Amino acid sequence: MKNTRINLLARPIGNPAPECWEIEEVDIPEIEENQVLIQTQYLSIDPAMRGWMNEGKSYIRPVRIGEVMRALGAGIVVESKHPDFKAGDSVTATTGVQEYAVLNGKDVIKVDPAFVPLPVYLGTLGMSGLTAYFGLLETGQPKAGETVVVSGAAGAVGSVVGQIAKIKGCRVVGIAGGEEKCKYAVEELGFDACVDYKTGDLRKNLKEACPDGVDVYFDNVGGEILDTVLTLINLKARIVICGAISQYNAIQKPVGPSNYLSLLVNRARMEGIVVFDNAPNYGKAIKEMAGWVAQGKLNGKVDIAEGGIRAFPETLMKLFKGENTGKLVLKV
Amino acid sequence: MKNTRINLLARPIGNPAPECWEIEEVDIPEIEENQVLIQTQYLSIDPAMRGWMNEGKSYIRPVRIGEVMRALGAGIVVESKHPDFKAGDSVTATTGVQEYAVLNGKDVIKVDPAFVPLPVYLGTLGMSGLTAYFGLLETGQPKAGETVVVSGAAGAVGSVVGQIAKIKGCRVVGIAGGEEKCKYAVEELGFDACVDYKTGDLRKNLKEACPDGVDVYFDNVGGEILDTVLTLINLKARIVICGAISQYNAIQKPVGPSNYLSLLVNRARMEGIVVFDNAPNYGKAIKEMAGWVAQGKLNGKVDIAEGGIRAFPETLMKLFKGENTGKLVLKV
Repeated sequence: MKNTRINLLARPIGNPAPECWEIEEVDIPEIEENQVLIQTQYLSIDPAMRGWMNEGKSYIRPVRIGEVMRALGAGIVVESKHPDFKAGDSVTATTGVQEYAVLNGKDVIKVDPAFVPLPVYLGTLGMSGLTAYFGLLETGQPKAGETVVVSGAAGAVGSVVGQIAKIKGCRVVGIAGGEEKCKYAVEELGFDACVDYKTGDLRKNLKEACPDGVDVYFDNVGGEILDTVLTLINLKARIVICGAISQYNAIQKPVGPSNYLSLLVNRARMEGIVVFDNAPNYGKAIKEMAGWVAQGKLNGKVDIAEGGIRAFPETLMKLFKGENTGKLVLKV
Repeated sequence: MKNTRINLLARPIGNPAPECWEIEEVDIPEIEENQVLIQTQYLSIDPAMRGWMNEGKSYIRPVRIGEVMRALGAGIVVESKHPDFKAGDSVTATTGVQEYAVLNGKDVIKVDPAFVPLPVYLGTLGMSGLTAYFGLLETGQPKAGETVVVSGAAGAVGSVVGQIAKIKGCRVVGIAGGEEKCKYAVEELGFDACVDYKTGDLRKNLKEACPDGVDVYFDNVGGEILDTVLTLINLKARIVICGAISQYNAIQKPVGPSNYLSLLVNRARMEGIVVFDNAPNYGKAIKEMAGWVAQGKLNGKVDIAEGGIRAFPETLMKLFKGENTGKLVLKV
């Protein structure tokens, strides 16, 4: 039994090119006391991965050169020397991009695949969903009747942000790239409107979709879209900075929001979030979101890429090309 | 008895050129019931004036073309038909750039020149001081032992921000242009350090002056200085956006802070303030600050420009050239 894994070979400049990766086959080590051996079935493909590949101080240490690429995964316990797990258990954990992971049981979370399918625990009930939940509710603080705008509206985080904002009684306007994604946000996720940033005048279209202005903006993309929304915010607006996928592969310095003085004029706030800060409250949030899924108020759509572990490099690029709808996972 | 006043004749592009202004001599009208006639003695010269000259939605309506330029002033009541005022009272009000102003008594504030000199009511105990007070304490929320950085450190707002932060037990680091201003901030205002942005490597010098990073940054200047401080902030830092004097005369679109993703990495917050929102609490704040002035903890330095009302256009330009130290007022 061999383990195929993908290591980070070089730090990318711009897009992560194939040369950044090394595919390696190694033996699976014997597990020790308190460890479990997990067979990875699905890998979460996240924009944050691009940041983990960079050197320098961030909210989490960079992946080291030669180290297996960091990734959240969902899989099955094959062997356990930890009292809380037995072979056959479904679990999620930071498995890394590999077919088999050996982890201490304390870093592994047991999940119930009878309740929702395993990959949903990487999406709506995983980091993406938790990011949406805490970012919107704690930092965005939307009130019923307010207008919430979210970019990356058809993506893993944005789709959940919009649905939770609807549950909270807000007018929800998405921003997404292409007619198909916009249709998905409105027809399948229940957004009030969704603006295609690839066609027409974004500011004009967004202004029409937000006749009462923007109270909360949840930003996943950065760049010109953030700058445009800044011109439409209301007094005391809250801007949640969750990500900036438009900038992650930029070789030049990222573009700053030149309209940031709108924060002054409108006494508004722009605040960054990292989901890990809310770890003590994950359980409560997952329970509430699971309830919404059960009631049909929260859609758990997963975009499953095929091809196995070796397809990881090109699957990651799908994110930056905007080719996914909903949470992107790789089937291992 | 004639009133000399300065009207806005044209909206400036870039620096407010002499052609933007019209000097006019008019009769002083008879005052009506509840009105007072004020002889202006000092005019507050503020960076915000540049914004008031622009068209477009802001936190206050633009000065209209042909209208007397908006300004806060301090002076003496010459005649009163309002029960709360009598001739000889010292007052502050939005007098406009003119020698005599007719105002409803409800828009006039009586002050005591025996307590502090009249121009101090335009500075430390006026809008500049109130902006510093509320911006720092309510939005910045500094805690004892934290590091507070303030730009425009020798200016009307920055000098008060730093002194209040010292009163609250913080390490205070200023940023100012030129050796003389930095010396003033450290030696006369009691800052722990002050970095001259005109010499050497700002980031390196600032990093040395803030060995524990930056917890609160009070920004009066915007541009590259804001962008540099963003690279030095701590977890959960608060950035108060009070102004952006480096950008007010920009003809091109202002430069956005390209390092804004530091807000994400550090779960930090950037928030705009406008002092008018705190109007209901001015009285309490002025009382507290007056106490600090009386105790010698808060310096009320005023930079008095001479030349009378006709010197207003060039006095305003002193601000943008960075030629003032402390609150700039024009003696009328």
